[in-house]
Amino acid sequence: MTLYDLDGSGNCYKVRLFAALADIELELVAVDLRAGEHKGEAMRSLNPWCEVPILKDGNLVLRDAQAILVYLAGRYGGEAWWPGEAHLQGEVMQWLSVAANEIQHGPAAARLGKKFAADLDLNLAQARSKRILGLMDAHLAKHQWLAAGRPSIAECAVFPYIGLAWEGGLEMGPYQNVQAWMQRIRALQGFKAMPGINGPGS
Amino acid sequence: MTLYDLDGSGNCYKVRLFAALADIELELVAVDLRAGEHKGEAMRSLNPWCEVPILKDGNLVLRDAQAILVYLAGRYGGEAWWPGEAHLQGEVMQWLSVAANEIQHGPAAARLGKKFAADLDLNLAQARSKRILGLMDAHLAKHQWLAAGRPSIAECAVFPYIGLAWEGGLEMGPYQNVQAWMQRIRALQGFKAMPGINGPGS
Repeated sequence: MTLYDLDGSGNCYKVRLFAALADIELELVAVDLRAGEHKGEAMRSLNPWCEVPILKDGNLVLRDAQAILVYLAGRYGGEAWWPGEAHLQGEVMQWLSVAANEIQHGPAAARLGKKFAADLDLNLAQARSKRILGLMDAHLAKHQWLAAGRPSIAECAVFPYIGLAWEGGLEMGPYQNVQAWMQRIRALQGFKAMPGINGPGS
Repeated sequence: MTLYDLDGSGNCYKVRLFAALADIELELVAVDLRAGEHKGEAMRSLNPWCEVPILKDGNLVLRDAQAILVYLAGRYGGEAWWPGEAHLQGEVMQWLSVAANEIQHGPAAARLGKKFAADLDLNLAQARSKRILGLMDAHLAKHQWLAAGRPSIAECAVFPYIGLAWEGGLEMGPYQNVQAWMQRIRALQGFKAMPGINGPGS
């Protein structure tokens, strides 16, 4: 099973983190985004969206970190990480949507703007980030985990860009419940970091 | 089962459309967003994110259209709409992410800017929309349905803001495969429209 990967990508880290936690072996293939490899013929035929991560498992090819998490957990991780009950899937799915939308356009965008000088509205991304962090902090004041009362793929989808939010210029001090939750994730057996994930307040 | 609803919202329509197709009965409760009802105490206690749709089924409360679709299909719609096999869930999930992220910040944002004069970057939203429509059109040149070889909740999540894209100033003429796919959706038993969904090229 192959993961087309970029080591500095939080989206790729979502998959690497889950694989580490669920003890799933991945062969990592580094994609050279600076050289535009993701837009070349070979990668485009795997993923016309020209993005990483991409998972290849036999004949199956999947793009999008959240989709890869659902697949890996369903196929190899079992109910521990992606519950079978509809109401718990719904609870987890709420946070997969947050990871795909609000976090991508909040902390992930702020990091792109601040760390990688991407051409985007950094103030807007930071304002969106503060809203999300506030909502998460209030949720985590009452819950140990995001959904289903236990660690799930919701943690793997949400944690990476929250742990990297400081690289987007966000002050994490006000979000004590988020910080405590990140410590709980770090304490999970098999946890694996990525560059930047152990920064201030992360 | 209650859906807190706004008739002009494409996100609420995702749920109403699926309920119509899967023959699930919903009690609709209109939320007066113009009067700020979504930010009031009662609605905030149901959804601190202050957004609709919200589904209440007994003690269960879910926000986010994609999460509601996963729950309703898993609990009431059966495998027809949300397959049990991990690889097919992964395929469908790719499009739930697209609905949550790229479509929200593409055609849904363009509609907010153009039709409702929301304070956002309309040019950016339209440019994003064209990318998504092009990618969808290429995908639908080879597939009748978005995922899993059959109509699924991916259709319910993606169709609404694609059908409303013309309200965001987008010319749908170039996307013939998308238009043919929308016709196939319209022909599904139980299909239900919303205001704007039968506009030019939609």
